Amino acid sequence: MLNFSDHPHTRLNILTGEKVLVSPHRSKRPWQGQVEDLVVEQRPAYDPNCYLCPSNKRADGTVNPDYGDSFVFVNDFSALLQDTPAGQYNDSGLLQAESERGICKVIAFSPRHDLTLPEMDQKAIEAVVDLWQQEFEDLAKKDWIKYIQIFENKGAIMGCSNPHPHGQIWAQGNVPVEVQKEDARQQDYYAKHRKSLLSDYIDLELQKKERIIIDNLHFVAVVPFWAAWPFETMIVSKRHVSDISQFTTEEKADLAKTLQELTIRYDNLFSTSFPYSAGMHQAPVNDGDQSHWHWHMHFYPPLLRSATVKKFMVGYEMMANPQRDITPEFAADQLKKQANIHYKTRKD
Amino acid sequence: MLNFSDHPHTRLNILTGEKVLVSPHRSKRPWQGQVEDLVVEQRPAYDPNCYLCPSNKRADGTVNPDYGDSFVFVNDFSALLQDTPAGQYNDSGLLQAESERGICKVIAFSPRHDLTLPEMDQKAIEAVVDLWQQEFEDLAKKDWIKYIQIFENKGAIMGCSNPHPHGQIWAQGNVPVEVQKEDARQQDYYAKHRKSLLSDYIDLELQKKERIIIDNLHFVAVVPFWAAWPFETMIVSKRHVSDISQFTTEEKADLAKTLQELTIRYDNLFSTSFPYSAGMHQAPVNDGDQSHWHWHMHFYPPLLRSATVKKFMVGYEMMANPQRDITPEFAADQLKKQANIHYKTRKD
Ligand SMILES: O=P(O)(O)O[C@H]1O[C@H](CO)[C@@H](O)[C@H](O)[C@H]1O
Ligand SMILES: O=P(O)(O)O[C@H]1O[C@H](CO)[C@@H](O)[C@H](O)[C@H]1O
Repeated sequence: MLNFSDHPHTRLNILTGEKVLVSPHRSKRPWQGQVEDLVVEQRPAYDPNCYLCPSNKRADGTVNPDYGDSFVFVNDFSALLQDTPAGQYNDSGLLQAESERGICKVIAFSPRHDLTLPEMDQKAIEAVVDLWQQEFEDLAKKDWIKYIQIFENKGAIMGCSNPHPHGQIWAQGNVPVEVQKEDARQQDYYAKHRKSLLSDYIDLELQKKERIIIDNLHFVAVVPFWAAWPFETMIVSKRHVSDISQFTTEEKADLAKTLQELTIRYDNLFSTSFPYSAGMHQAPVNDGDQSHWHWHMHFYPPLLRSATVKKFMVGYEMMANPQRDITPEFAADQLKKQANIHYKTRKD
Repeated sequence: MLNFSDHPHTRLNILTGEKVLVSPHRSKRPWQGQVEDLVVEQRPAYDPNCYLCPSNKRADGTVNPDYGDSFVFVNDFSALLQDTPAGQYNDSGLLQAESERGICKVIAFSPRHDLTLPEMDQKAIEAVVDLWQQEFEDLAKKDWIKYIQIFENKGAIMGCSNPHPHGQIWAQGNVPVEVQKEDARQQDYYAKHRKSLLSDYIDLELQKKERIIIDNLHFVAVVPFWAAWPFETMIVSKRHVSDISQFTTEEKADLAKTLQELTIRYDNLFSTSFPYSAGMHQAPVNDGDQSHWHWHMHFYPPLLRSATVKKFMVGYEMMANPQRDITPEFAADQLKKQANIHYKTRKD
């Protein structure tokens, strides 16, 4: 009999078809390696040197507007460019390359330099969700764009180069590899069951209750059964919609609430501004029937035991298989136990 | 026309079938984010608190022998255990898990606490290669073992928890996911061409010369056309062998020389002890015909521009596609330019 909390085992990621190795007994391992710097900075509400603060000058000389809620612009150091000419290269099938056209945008979540999503109020987060939806719709109007990746890197340890709360959108002419994997698995499932893979998955999780962190009218937040990062979670819409453009005003408000609650729980876990990379997965655009796609958002946070000890996905993980020490069930328990009020505003 | 050094483009990793996004124009991006600590420690040749030094006591009370060359033992905090009972779990195809049996070993590369591979002499590295071969052969004798992952995490930023030079071997009852990918692509190619994928690939690279760093009698070291990490390299054997057990004494000596030269070039690049995760990919064991497999070893180093600025594989990379700024050709040039003598021993 397989005992999840004692026996090393693998779990299947049903979205990618790939496995993760779980070593539950290993959480007792003492840590003698690198510890991260503890970031307990007090940031000013406005920083004259920040290229995201209202009315400041950016790298290319443009001056930001004195914006109210959130603000979007094309990344001054875009990894993808709109004017890239089409082109292909193939030598013997061994060296294969193809040009990639795209647009990279930056979204400031708030004019306030000192805030982060969990410290913003729900209305302000709703404005961010609105902007995501609008940007998605605008970008999807360009028929050469096939996929729109909305994401956020939060925290210096996640390669975020500016603490001003912001996210990014990279839109491009081809469907990237992680999205292709999820596309294939969702298509298979939908063809067989005429229901979306994630509808059935969250129904099952809602029955089990073991890994659910948040359950409101329109969304659930769950530690996936196959989570690889220690406190990895996924937000899934209860309604089967394929992308963010289909969310109603009510759903958008609920998504904002879910984001707020989840990120507050994260911050409370180790009483720190919890770093992560988060991103939505949704249907490709301008690319035929997408009814098999079910919108969801992944959170991949690196911290393992404290504000300064993270999980390293290195040698074995890079060469062989993602590996985790604590079980997803244990991680879910820890997140469920957290208060729903941000630790900084708690009077105790 | 696709211009590799100007146009954003994707390249195909022929070993995994997955793409990497190359943004050559983006290397001009100024870096304002996290910088890593510069590690310029002077370590003693022997550290009484190190669990890998000769004659010291380990976590479980065992005392290390006073070993001469290298030394191997079962990891005191193994992620895989030998006595894990078989077991499976499947709920509706949505929650799938399987127990995983395995053995995790640690190999101290040298009794000297203060050395690393590039600072060891060739004979000492040969002893490590010998031990890898012997361990591989011994582990492969257990018929329940299907794959043997030999790897090294070097440097605190790669999650290495002890600077004493060492690597690891994880052997397990199932073939892990990255190896499965490479297995499938190599099998396809071999079925079609009756030659190994990597034989044809290195022949082509040897013609082009653009990305080859080292070319000796038995091995090449190349920055793969599809490299994702800034200074990623791959060592490939010229002879098509499927695993390390098939290497002759001559080949093993040449592998040691190649490892020494490559890691010296790495250290010289930024005049620092260059961090990386490295690992061999080779044929599964006890698992039928493996003639399509071609032994190789990957090096995934995180540094991008200096000893303290690394590449972050985060938001876009995790959600969508690995991404790099400098081209593999530029990286190869930088590595080719380095001296073949370690910077610490250079008198200038
Ligand atoms: O066993 P170590 O060196 O302490 O641990 C290191 O390597 C392992 C295998 O890649 C990883 O799972 C750990 O996250 C990392 O810290
Ligand atoms: O664009 P940023 O925030 O400066 O850069 C960050 O996010 C990008 C997208 O995930 C990564 O490619 C970079 O490595 C990372 O530092």
